Amino acid sequence: MKKVGVLGATGYVGSQLLSILFNHSGVDVSWVTSEKYSGDRLSDSLPHLKDLYGIRCTSVSDIKDLENVDLVFSCLPSGFSMNFVEKFFRSGSLVIDLSSDFRIKDPGMFKRIYGVKQRYPGIAAKAEYGLAEVYTKYIKNSRIVANPGCYATAVLIPLIPILECREICEKNFIVDMKSSISGAGRAPRPAFHFPEANQNVSVDNLKDHDQKYEIEVILSAIHKDNYNSVFSTYHLPVNRGILCSIYLKLKKDKSVYSRVSEILKGYYGQGGFIRVLGHGVLPALHNVCGSNYMDIGFEVQDDHLILVSALDNLVKGAAGQAVQNMNIMLGFDQSEGLKNIADYS
Amino acid sequence: MKKVGVLGATGYVGSQLLSILFNHSGVDVSWVTSEKYSGDRLSDSLPHLKDLYGIRCTSVSDIKDLENVDLVFSCLPSGFSMNFVEKFFRSGSLVIDLSSDFRIKDPGMFKRIYGVKQRYPGIAAKAEYGLAEVYTKYIKNSRIVANPGCYATAVLIPLIPILECREICEKNFIVDMKSSISGAGRAPRPAFHFPEANQNVSVDNLKDHDQKYEIEVILSAIHKDNYNSVFSTYHLPVNRGILCSIYLKLKKDKSVYSRVSEILKGYYGQGGFIRVLGHGVLPALHNVCGSNYMDIGFEVQDDHLILVSALDNLVKGAAGQAVQNMNIMLGFDQSEGLKNIADYS
Amino acid sequence: MKKVGVLGATGYVGSQLLSILFNHSGVDVSWVTSEKYSGDRLSDSLPHLKDLYGIRCTSVSDIKDLENVDLVFSCLPSGFSMNFVEKFFRSGSLVIDLSSDFRIKDPGMFKRIYGVKQRYPGIAAKAEYGLAEVYTKYIKNSRIVANPGCYATAVLIPLIPILECREICEKNFIVDMKSSISGAGRAPRPAFHFPEANQNVSVDNLKDHDQKYEIEVILSAIHKDNYNSVFSTYHLPVNRGILCSIYLKLKKDKSVYSRVSEILKGYYGQGGFIRVLGHGVLPALHNVCGSNYMDIGFEVQDDHLILVSALDNLVKGAAGQAVQNMNIMLGFDQSEGLKNIADYS
Amino acid sequence: MKKVGVLGATGYVGSQLLSILFNHSGVDVSWVTSEKYSGDRLSDSLPHLKDLYGIRCTSVSDIKDLENVDLVFSCLPSGFSMNFVEKFFRSGSLVIDLSSDFRIKDPGMFKRIYGVKQRYPGIAAKAEYGLAEVYTKYIKNSRIVANPGCYATAVLIPLIPILECREICEKNFIVDMKSSISGAGRAPRPAFHFPEANQNVSVDNLKDHDQKYEIEVILSAIHKDNYNSVFSTYHLPVNRGILCSIYLKLKKDKSVYSRVSEILKGYYGQGGFIRVLGHGVLPALHNVCGSNYMDIGFEVQDDHLILVSALDNLVKGAAGQAVQNMNIMLGFDQSEGLKNIADYS
Repeated sequence: MKKVGVLGATGYVGSQLLSILFNHSGVDVSWVTSEKYSGDRLSDSLPHLKDLYGIRCTSVSDIKDLENVDLVFSCLPSGFSMNFVEKFFRSGSLVIDLSSDFRIKDPGMFKRIYGVKQRYPGIAAKAEYGLAEVYTKYIKNSRIVANPGCYATAVLIPLIPILECREICEKNFIVDMKSSISGAGRAPRPAFHFPEANQNVSVDNLKDHDQKYEIEVILSAIHKDNYNSVFSTYHLPVNRGILCSIYLKLKKDKSVYSRVSEILKGYYGQGGFIRVLGHGVLPALHNVCGSNYMDIGFEVQDDHLILVSALDNLVKGAAGQAVQNMNIMLGFDQSEGLKNIADYS
Repeated sequence: MKKVGVLGATGYVGSQLLSILFNHSGVDVSWVTSEKYSGDRLSDSLPHLKDLYGIRCTSVSDIKDLENVDLVFSCLPSGFSMNFVEKFFRSGSLVIDLSSDFRIKDPGMFKRIYGVKQRYPGIAAKAEYGLAEVYTKYIKNSRIVANPGCYATAVLIPLIPILECREICEKNFIVDMKSSISGAGRAPRPAFHFPEANQNVSVDNLKDHDQKYEIEVILSAIHKDNYNSVFSTYHLPVNRGILCSIYLKLKKDKSVYSRVSEILKGYYGQGGFIRVLGHGVLPALHNVCGSNYMDIGFEVQDDHLILVSALDNLVKGAAGQAVQNMNIMLGFDQSEGLKNIADYS
Repeated sequence: MKKVGVLGATGYVGSQLLSILFNHSGVDVSWVTSEKYSGDRLSDSLPHLKDLYGIRCTSVSDIKDLENVDLVFSCLPSGFSMNFVEKFFRSGSLVIDLSSDFRIKDPGMFKRIYGVKQRYPGIAAKAEYGLAEVYTKYIKNSRIVANPGCYATAVLIPLIPILECREICEKNFIVDMKSSISGAGRAPRPAFHFPEANQNVSVDNLKDHDQKYEIEVILSAIHKDNYNSVFSTYHLPVNRGILCSIYLKLKKDKSVYSRVSEILKGYYGQGGFIRVLGHGVLPALHNVCGSNYMDIGFEVQDDHLILVSALDNLVKGAAGQAVQNMNIMLGFDQSEGLKNIADYS
Repeated sequence: MKKVGVLGATGYVGSQLLSILFNHSGVDVSWVTSEKYSGDRLSDSLPHLKDLYGIRCTSVSDIKDLENVDLVFSCLPSGFSMNFVEKFFRSGSLVIDLSSDFRIKDPGMFKRIYGVKQRYPGIAAKAEYGLAEVYTKYIKNSRIVANPGCYATAVLIPLIPILECREICEKNFIVDMKSSISGAGRAPRPAFHFPEANQNVSVDNLKDHDQKYEIEVILSAIHKDNYNSVFSTYHLPVNRGILCSIYLKLKKDKSVYSRVSEILKGYYGQGGFIRVLGHGVLPALHNVCGSNYMDIGFEVQDDHLILVSALDNLVKGAAGQAVQNMNIMLGFDQSEGLKNIADYS
């Protein structure tokens, strides 16, 4: 059994990660940290885990006792995570960082996107971007993985194969991201107080979301070209899930329907977590939430291709993809621990 | 036009009150207070009121400029409200206090229920309990009205007429209160963070809710007898509304169905805000939320009578009943400003 | 008092219309029709209206007794409505048709959009398109008004003034429509069974929604030019409301922020139902649902203008705008009966 | 590997069962039936199962090909299920019937409760009541198990141990059942059309729910005494879950708090699916939905004990308990296939 530690375990991503790891046949959770609940049993803050974990939360500052694990997941907040990732990376543990701290290698770009300094550019240079289906072989040999943002995952998985075929679409695209509220974290705030968020749909960000740039940087790196997006995010009254619409202008040929399907199926194959839906079948959150699956559907309207992807932001968009990356790094089957099926109803 | 002021205007009750008063033909809102949003336009914190109110929020401490109104509504928190109610009462304004600060006259009882001291027992002695349909004539001649709790309204309206007929039910009863989340106020807290409260049903209080005692005290006062309840409250994922179930043990005669209907209809009459539903029709939040109506249905099961009432906790359970009380005090038609119909869908 | 009749009164739009008309000072509802509930009291199918309306539902086929009204609202289904509209129009009543049957004047276009034949092209030629703020003076003198679709209203209100200034944006645009479920009507169907629709977000139509063409036809008519849209609709788990995102490519000048605000405010003025939000304030359903207001916000991202509008599909998107049109036709103040404020929480 | 068949696979209970069985290490699903979707791939009606099951739906009338399995689950409707259960039972398969058709042994009682005739009293006599933790040893040796109702499970699990100690509570009790909507099945109907059920709380049954009698019969059988309940059910706008409140009158001793905890923990032990919560911790749907756990909390208020249980109606209340029963019958570990953890957010 491999041993893992979880930094920042009592937020929604940490909680989801603990649920997945509990049913993983090859790893044990040696420790978990929480600043807020340090010293408490896990079920004090995560009551659904009652009877499932015997360990208590530790403060991340009790770091000396924590190093003896094979792999560390960091679910700490962006900007804060890098300092602890660095410590564990130096000590020899493999690291999967679920914050945005190591997704961008270029320090100047990092500063422009996040508004803070990259304090560990050397580690950033070594970090692989953990888009599991796309960068599998790099992840396999990596000691540190930067787990992608949930929005970036929703956009990049359908878009990378399509933009690879340069004769289909123009390079620029519009993203309209319909997002659940768990993605905003577990700390209460006015906009997500139940009577404010329920029966409401609101605009989150129409201007400068950091994942807009994460997407553009990754696309540009993989396809050696420049891509620009209009990127907009909205909050909907659901607990989990992202429904992502991508609008692309078609080049000359408007009869691309069957090619789009072939390209996506060819790229991702059968039997993995990426499901390309058949003609006329379109994604819905119900079919993916609770699982590590991403569903992709599409339609052609006049001179535009519309790609729609759906995923659970806490699973395929965060903790699930992180475990998939761990499986790749540690040599497990990619789906180990990730066999949960969507709840549907 | 009468002039009114609203203390604590930017919470859910205050917001509802401003919506109702905007459409009231006989009153103008002269000022509103908010500590948090002092100096701001109302629509900064209540964006649905954009263009509707020209006034800005004032701090309650700027009290000198605020006295020149006919009637003051206090939507301030319980325990805090009494101090300001006292000031306006002394200055000669009529007062409707929506907190629990003047619902209980006996200072000893007050201390036992709320755990704090009644600092103004003289005012408490003068305050009428604003259960509008029951105490109409007292409210009419009162200078200060203690607006009932939403749960107390849900229980007392159906129960007072039924318990008045002493041969129908035993005196003790069980209340199971299914409550929306707006009743817990507008301040964010972990239990009501959207992803925690949505798709969830949780227990609120099984032990010592203050409105348990408010109900018992009022029942005992009106019927000159002792009543004991088991009182339990639950939070459901809806923005507004209370569905209240009251379980009463029948005395000898089990065939009371038609008598219950006659008693309730006889007590409340036709055309008011209390609607007694026909046989086999049972209350639902959809039929009352957004309006000042309370629907009452009932059923007999073996040796028990089950009364079910439904109301909007922010309207009939708070701001609506407060305006109804104002209408009684100022001589308007009881329904003035309160003609909104439930949204239904 | 003017007398009105309502065809198809027990669906969501009819229900909303009856709620509004109940509080209208200048009209009385003489009759309502429902095929399904013919003979029943209104509150049998719309229990929130208990005690509010004394009339019973009539079948539309009992048409002879129904003609004696000043104005008829038709909430009948599209394709079916035209036959009854024709009867009342011929009999001399004013008519407001809430179906899509008279929104498109050209019979060939009508056939292409709706797939059925326009049986009354002569009436279609006389019908004014009831976009209340835009066609006010035409509506005033019209005997028949085709009430706009809810989606068309959401798009046209912000877009007409912006596209009028031809130097700001390219002519083509992308619409991403986030819609509530009440817009799909009151008849149960699998996709909107509660456990299927709740906690779900799904794609409705990515291909050929009839309101895509309604919008393009109206825009082309008003601005004497051709406009093409990509039009996509999604269903979200809320009862009411539309949040509409419109993506437009800017022409040369990227610094259009203040101009967009001026144009919109200049076109719609102050004090009406169209509220243009200030910089950094963006629409949310909570601020409009339950009311006849439409809120418009916007943002500039790189070379795109994003317009976002929010409205209640049953009020400003249907019954509210219909009453506004009636007010214009009958000479009432435009806001008569439409003073309800959004519920907010 | 054992082979199982599922009758009625495309409703919510069947769907949940297929999700659980997919992750069960000891069984394969040989066939599934659906009348509505006969001939279709499972993912046509259950799109979240795409790529997971290769089989197609068969009609239950193609029964000859279906017999070669070790165990059959019937998720067919009550009244209809018994005919097919009989066929498989006669053919030698083990059967777990999730309908109510074999829960009551006495034919006269069966007729009184369900209003229909028990056509197979001989099989009913052999069926064990599948309350897994209580009747484990009977289930182990049974060839047919009648899976309990979800409401009955919610009541009987906490109540059986408490009523066994006859000096604690009076025999009669009141049940207030707060239920999700998935329990009403997958067929659309007006009351559960999304805009009717969302933001609504409604009364389901205050009079004669069949599970009231199921509970009374089982309690009377196990404790050799007569028990009477007041049993009421309500529908809340959540997809899954039951929160069940049971009100019991205490006998003389009011200081039973610690005894109740001891009794429940003693009866169910540690490490199983029944979790007895600590003092002051009360159940919530979030902690159990998606899992096979039932949480039990309680409180003493004056002279009453209030027991509260929470479970997922589709898992512990139906398909999960059915698999637990299968595990007992086939000799697997009770938790095999049932290790899913509640989603929480």
